[in-house]
Amino acid sequence: MDLGALLREIVQELEAERGCGEVARYIPPLARVDPRQFGMALVECDGTCHVAGDAMTRFSIQSISKVFSLTLAMQHVRDDLWLRVGREPSGTRFNSLVQLEHERGIPRNPFINAGALVVTDMILECLADAKQTLLDLVRQLSGAMDAAFAEDVAQEEAATGHINRAMAWFMKGLGNLKGDPDAVLDAYFHHCSLSLSCLELARAGLYLARRGNALDGTCVLSPRATQRINAMMLTCGAYDAVGDFAYRVGLPAKSGVGGGILAVLPGHYSVCVWSPGLDAAGNSMLGIRALERLTERTGLSVF
Amino acid sequence: MDLGALLREIVQELEAERGCGEVARYIPPLARVDPRQFGMALVECDGTCHVAGDAMTRFSIQSISKVFSLTLAMQHVRDDLWLRVGREPSGTRFNSLVQLEHERGIPRNPFINAGALVVTDMILECLADAKQTLLDLVRQLSGAMDAAFAEDVAQEEAATGHINRAMAWFMKGLGNLKGDPDAVLDAYFHHCSLSLSCLELARAGLYLARRGNALDGTCVLSPRATQRINAMMLTCGAYDAVGDFAYRVGLPAKSGVGGGILAVLPGHYSVCVWSPGLDAAGNSMLGIRALERLTERTGLSVF
Amino acid sequence: MDLGALLREIVQELEAERGCGEVARYIPPLARVDPRQFGMALVECDGTCHVAGDAMTRFSIQSISKVFSLTLAMQHVRDDLWLRVGREPSGTRFNSLVQLEHERGIPRNPFINAGALVVTDMILECLADAKQTLLDLVRQLSGAMDAAFAEDVAQEEAATGHINRAMAWFMKGLGNLKGDPDAVLDAYFHHCSLSLSCLELARAGLYLARRGNALDGTCVLSPRATQRINAMMLTCGAYDAVGDFAYRVGLPAKSGVGGGILAVLPGHYSVCVWSPGLDAAGNSMLGIRALERLTERTGLSVF
Amino acid sequence: MDLGALLREIVQELEAERGCGEVARYIPPLARVDPRQFGMALVECDGTCHVAGDAMTRFSIQSISKVFSLTLAMQHVRDDLWLRVGREPSGTRFNSLVQLEHERGIPRNPFINAGALVVTDMILECLADAKQTLLDLVRQLSGAMDAAFAEDVAQEEAATGHINRAMAWFMKGLGNLKGDPDAVLDAYFHHCSLSLSCLELARAGLYLARRGNALDGTCVLSPRATQRINAMMLTCGAYDAVGDFAYRVGLPAKSGVGGGILAVLPGHYSVCVWSPGLDAAGNSMLGIRALERLTERTGLSVF
Repeated sequence: MDLGALLREIVQELEAERGCGEVARYIPPLARVDPRQFGMALVECDGTCHVAGDAMTRFSIQSISKVFSLTLAMQHVRDDLWLRVGREPSGTRFNSLVQLEHERGIPRNPFINAGALVVTDMILECLADAKQTLLDLVRQLSGAMDAAFAEDVAQEEAATGHINRAMAWFMKGLGNLKGDPDAVLDAYFHHCSLSLSCLELARAGLYLARRGNALDGTCVLSPRATQRINAMMLTCGAYDAVGDFAYRVGLPAKSGVGGGILAVLPGHYSVCVWSPGLDAAGNSMLGIRALERLTERTGLSVF
Repeated sequence: MDLGALLREIVQELEAERGCGEVARYIPPLARVDPRQFGMALVECDGTCHVAGDAMTRFSIQSISKVFSLTLAMQHVRDDLWLRVGREPSGTRFNSLVQLEHERGIPRNPFINAGALVVTDMILECLADAKQTLLDLVRQLSGAMDAAFAEDVAQEEAATGHINRAMAWFMKGLGNLKGDPDAVLDAYFHHCSLSLSCLELARAGLYLARRGNALDGTCVLSPRATQRINAMMLTCGAYDAVGDFAYRVGLPAKSGVGGGILAVLPGHYSVCVWSPGLDAAGNSMLGIRALERLTERTGLSVF
Repeated sequence: MDLGALLREIVQELEAERGCGEVARYIPPLARVDPRQFGMALVECDGTCHVAGDAMTRFSIQSISKVFSLTLAMQHVRDDLWLRVGREPSGTRFNSLVQLEHERGIPRNPFINAGALVVTDMILECLADAKQTLLDLVRQLSGAMDAAFAEDVAQEEAATGHINRAMAWFMKGLGNLKGDPDAVLDAYFHHCSLSLSCLELARAGLYLARRGNALDGTCVLSPRATQRINAMMLTCGAYDAVGDFAYRVGLPAKSGVGGGILAVLPGHYSVCVWSPGLDAAGNSMLGIRALERLTERTGLSVF
Repeated sequence: MDLGALLREIVQELEAERGCGEVARYIPPLARVDPRQFGMALVECDGTCHVAGDAMTRFSIQSISKVFSLTLAMQHVRDDLWLRVGREPSGTRFNSLVQLEHERGIPRNPFINAGALVVTDMILECLADAKQTLLDLVRQLSGAMDAAFAEDVAQEEAATGHINRAMAWFMKGLGNLKGDPDAVLDAYFHHCSLSLSCLELARAGLYLARRGNALDGTCVLSPRATQRINAMMLTCGAYDAVGDFAYRVGLPAKSGVGGGILAVLPGHYSVCVWSPGLDAAGNSMLGIRALERLTERTGLSVF
């Protein structure tokens, strides 16, 4: 099957739906993004790339960065990790404190905000410069050596991220944050502020489709650890709509409020789709539709 | 890889762990089951069968029956189905009424008790004899023409199933149960009471690995519908431990409190493991360990 | 102060507001009540009676009956009572199952539905004919020897009370209902169906203002037990609006969805107000306004 | 009745129970308090004072300060107040964030921590120096012109009060905190750090028993506003045990984790009891027992 042609076909079919959904408005740098943008990039396991639409435009990856911080944690922290963060779907909004209170400060999984704060706390503990290490990892995997944190985005998040700040202090109070909450938040907001294009993100995520090996042969994670990240992406990667996403798309994926979704079909490809309009659950509305067509047309999903 | 040899190897390695976990004790027919039983059966997509341990002993399939009632509903009810039951992991115990109250009587998914009651209500609405139709389906798929409901189990469930009765009346009160709650409960308790062996269950579930086709070529469900059932099994099939199950095993699966687990690797095989001792989440403790070894040794899971 | 004149003044001032609020519509006998009715009756501790408006019209006392079933339980059950029902405000809707699930079937207090079901179960256990005993108590206290259960109301409640039925089965499942749920529900629905006028109810409740003594000198409860019922009426008697009621009115009280409110100022009087229109919390809208004026004008509340 | 003799009798009877309960240990200044201390002071409406036990020893009043900050708010803020804080019992722990999340940042009442933070925010908005104004009020009412904030207590609270900090940021995020969370927390922690003796506190609270008038005739609050504070103390003043406290004691009261309880019988007296050992709900264990005997022996409570 010509996956490049399929991508272009999908982007064209959905042309009329550009702009659907609601752009995230909680900080100005996100609010002013043009809602009609829409891009797709797919990288096959052998490195073959396919693009369609605005696949080369950089956007704020936001929560997709949680995949890379978890990868760092799985490289460096290992077993202690799962004592401090769970691996179950949350069943509640991504920024809910209710679950944290009921379960004594242990976030349900590493892909909700509270969980990513704990993961960030853990990598800050064991890496000399966690922000830079994460940036280096993403640069290496994506090949985008000029990828950088968007300082304006990070500053705006810090200035308005009261709920995240509450969460960090709450976990500090419940004993599940070791470092200074302000330092953890600073690193977390920077990770979220990373800007990448669809093509760069699809490249960066290819190791998840290649049993943990990057295209240059580097072993990022073991095959087993890679399967486990994919499992968590499938059960926890799409906010409070994981069941619906699995039902409609059927791929391990992680979405972000910037409108990006990174998904993989292990053994076949990684794919990134981006369109800023979100649905009620916070996932890219057009993005899900595009991925739904991709697995429907190819007949291939993990199921 | 010789899957039969692998099965026997796994059963032998776990020999010392027979009897671990806690047998379900809420009704006498379950409580008096010998906890040291342990069987595995795997059926490849071409029909090749492999067995190990107590693979030919029948046991109470309990919640695994929810896969078959959902299959009937997907054959007969179609779209209305998803207006009355969700498809998200519950995030709470399988018999919780809290979620029902917060979400106005719409159960989170068809694999928790409340969801299965709604599914049963729907098939009772559109089939002349829903109990018999389900029994016929299971007999046909498993090849076990003498499979039958265990009346003593069904009666005991009815006599002690106060929480399920509460759930049915609660949904009746919230408008999401059309029929008589007592009739719905009767059918539901009968479905749960079905007895099958590992080999019979693995055969019965093979259509989930064969894009909806039974071994005799009958189309049970379309490929897309089959992918969707698999998706729901992965995100909702292991009670409140779906994330952990996906992380450790990585297969779509449905477990029951009788100690059985039915799992599939689409395109490869269906597998059933049974051992009555349960973990805290209500899944077979030895069963999960056996499946974990299966996907670890073969290196193959959906991820 | 001339309390009779004050009552007539209040009823006259609120003339324009007759019909405000929403009449309970869940069963026809309640739905067809004329919403513009409004009556008040106050009985002083020495037996002096004052009436205004529709004070002699009988209405369905509904949850106000919970005061009398609790009184019976405090006469007959004693200490065991508080092992099976709490005495804290619920913090949730009167028919919520969430609290029951979180607190293992122990209702928060005797004035929410679940609590009254447990109280009813307890008096059914220790009285030969609990329905008749409650009716006799109310007849004796109110002097209305022809007071009776409204069978049509009781039947309608039984036919549509699915949520109450769910609650009874849920507590049965959690071990906090000893008898047959259907028998408990039958007695409970009958208690709720009692019809009394404002004057009859104010007379019936006078023992609460007289340290437990009825007007004829009979000791209904000890002074200490009476203070305790009053305490529970104040902290739990107005559904999920007890704080607001205490703030605005400042009297121990119990309301019902029929639009009645029975309140007492210990050492001074008992008062009953009735108007069928309810506010969002389920309390009589005009009733609260009338009681608010009563304590404001007299300057006297328990505070 | 000789109330002084009664107080001494109660303190003597409970001699053997000194030291019961658990002293609050979350900050060193509270943890090192001698648990065997026990004092009572009662001030009648005419100013007559009675003391027994350690009634002249100062202790950390903690949450009892919420009565005085609410009094300031009712003097200065008025109606806006009840748009930003409710007046219902919480039904949950005093430091729970769950309720806040479910009810969009509006705390249930002014006596839980979140509610007191909002009250503090409001008085900081309208008073030039809120900390000093509160201190002046307490000095004037208690006659203890040397009463002061315990800086060490305030500093320790600030250093370890992560949950309160989380709460403040959470409400900031939900739009119900106008000022700088750090400034609000600083004032709040100072208010809690006030040290007073039983006699000083009973004197300070006397206006609540005197329809809002201090002993020197100053009008602190109107009679209606005073009844309302008393109503809220009764329905919300004893953490998550208000129903039990009303049942056993029957007085409007506010407790603190320092082991103090301030209670009033309007028209009769204000009383303060102190003993550092707390029960599971966070109220002074010996304190409640002492107040229970007081209302039992006198036969007088608000009910």
